[in-house]
Amino acid sequence: MEQTALDDHEYRAAVTDLLGVLAYGELTAFVRMAVDSDLAPTLSLKSQMAQLAHTEYVQYTLLVEHLRSLGIDPEEAMQPFVAPFSSFHERTRPKSWLEGLVKAYVGDGIGKDFYREVSTFVAPETREVMLAALDDQTESDFVVQIVRDALRTDPTAAGRLALWGRRLMGEALSQAQAVAVERDAMSALLIGGGMDLAEVGRMFARLTENHQRRMTRLGLEA
Amino acid sequence: MEQTALDDHEYRAAVTDLLGVLAYGELTAFVRMAVDSDLAPTLSLKSQMAQLAHTEYVQYTLLVEHLRSLGIDPEEAMQPFVAPFSSFHERTRPKSWLEGLVKAYVGDGIGKDFYREVSTFVAPETREVMLAALDDQTESDFVVQIVRDALRTDPTAAGRLALWGRRLMGEALSQAQAVAVERDAMSALLIGGGMDLAEVGRMFARLTENHQRRMTRLGLEA
Repeated sequence: MEQTALDDHEYRAAVTDLLGVLAYGELTAFVRMAVDSDLAPTLSLKSQMAQLAHTEYVQYTLLVEHLRSLGIDPEEAMQPFVAPFSSFHERTRPKSWLEGLVKAYVGDGIGKDFYREVSTFVAPETREVMLAALDDQTESDFVVQIVRDALRTDPTAAGRLALWGRRLMGEALSQAQAVAVERDAMSALLIGGGMDLAEVGRMFARLTENHQRRMTRLGLEA
Repeated sequence: MEQTALDDHEYRAAVTDLLGVLAYGELTAFVRMAVDSDLAPTLSLKSQMAQLAHTEYVQYTLLVEHLRSLGIDPEEAMQPFVAPFSSFHERTRPKSWLEGLVKAYVGDGIGKDFYREVSTFVAPETREVMLAALDDQTESDFVVQIVRDALRTDPTAAGRLALWGRRLMGEALSQAQAVAVERDAMSALLIGGGMDLAEVGRMFARLTENHQRRMTRLGLEA
């Protein structure tokens, strides 16, 4: 039972961090996507982007409820991650609708891959909620078609957006590293959970490969 | 049955407009509230504002589904209202978290009062969906306490926010008037539905009274 595992101070701290970072990530993704939907050139696209934002919000509420059910205060759990996320979003403010779309698709993808990796180290109850909160039901697939269409009508966009994708990955990694250094318990969960440094390396290789696959799907060089 | 009523060209045009303006209003309220939640000084307030935004989105989807069930294209129905709403939001961009809160509370209140008035002129099926889409379950009540607390710590805010409330009402009325002039069918629904000009006048008096009540509740002079 997870409740027993939570008696372990280290495990509790790690799960608090993990759910906190995931919840706050969904909340800020909700806000960013809603903001970016304002840049949409058509009503239909605005509505689809709003739908993506809405899904993030629903997933956020799942995590908040789960935190409460574990007796963990959601706000306290999220607080340490306010600064790194706000840093990430400050540094990756989309300057166009297309940049916003690529960010929604690629940024979300990187985050969710990472959480899926980490979910193997937590108790089944928490893993289940995490996986539900990560299920995007391929809603973001509409992004692929729009980006590909845009590249056809404006071939110069490919270079700019490829650069943008690399920047998103770079900023995400740099914030993740800052968080890993700060949050001992979360890092210990990975290492203590059976990952040695070589395994951590392989995890990052998998994250990068998935990122490249997403960029390719968009028609962009990773 | 509403389907029969919809055979009447005028009624169909009026209901299309009415549901279109309501749906687009909810969609833009969703975006604006999500954007404004970014100004929240604490995580808890950000989360509560996001919750308000989320409710608007859910209500938006109700209206879109109802439009589809009547065989009306939601995007075509919303299109005529993109410009007036964008005008309204351009002219009432909150410069602070408190202004955003007052706008969410007061602006939403004015809109919903108006739609509730109009809902008495449509067929029961549409009325039911409209009333569901207008049900805010007193979620926005948290706003009242925050604004009152803010006025206690900064008494000079009262004058500024009172002015802001009057501006919101003025801009809302001015956009509503522009819409009424443009959209004959919707105006005809009110007038043809039994409202004479005196009754329209009384409706505006009721809207203004409710607005004043909301301002008083916030601790502000209307």
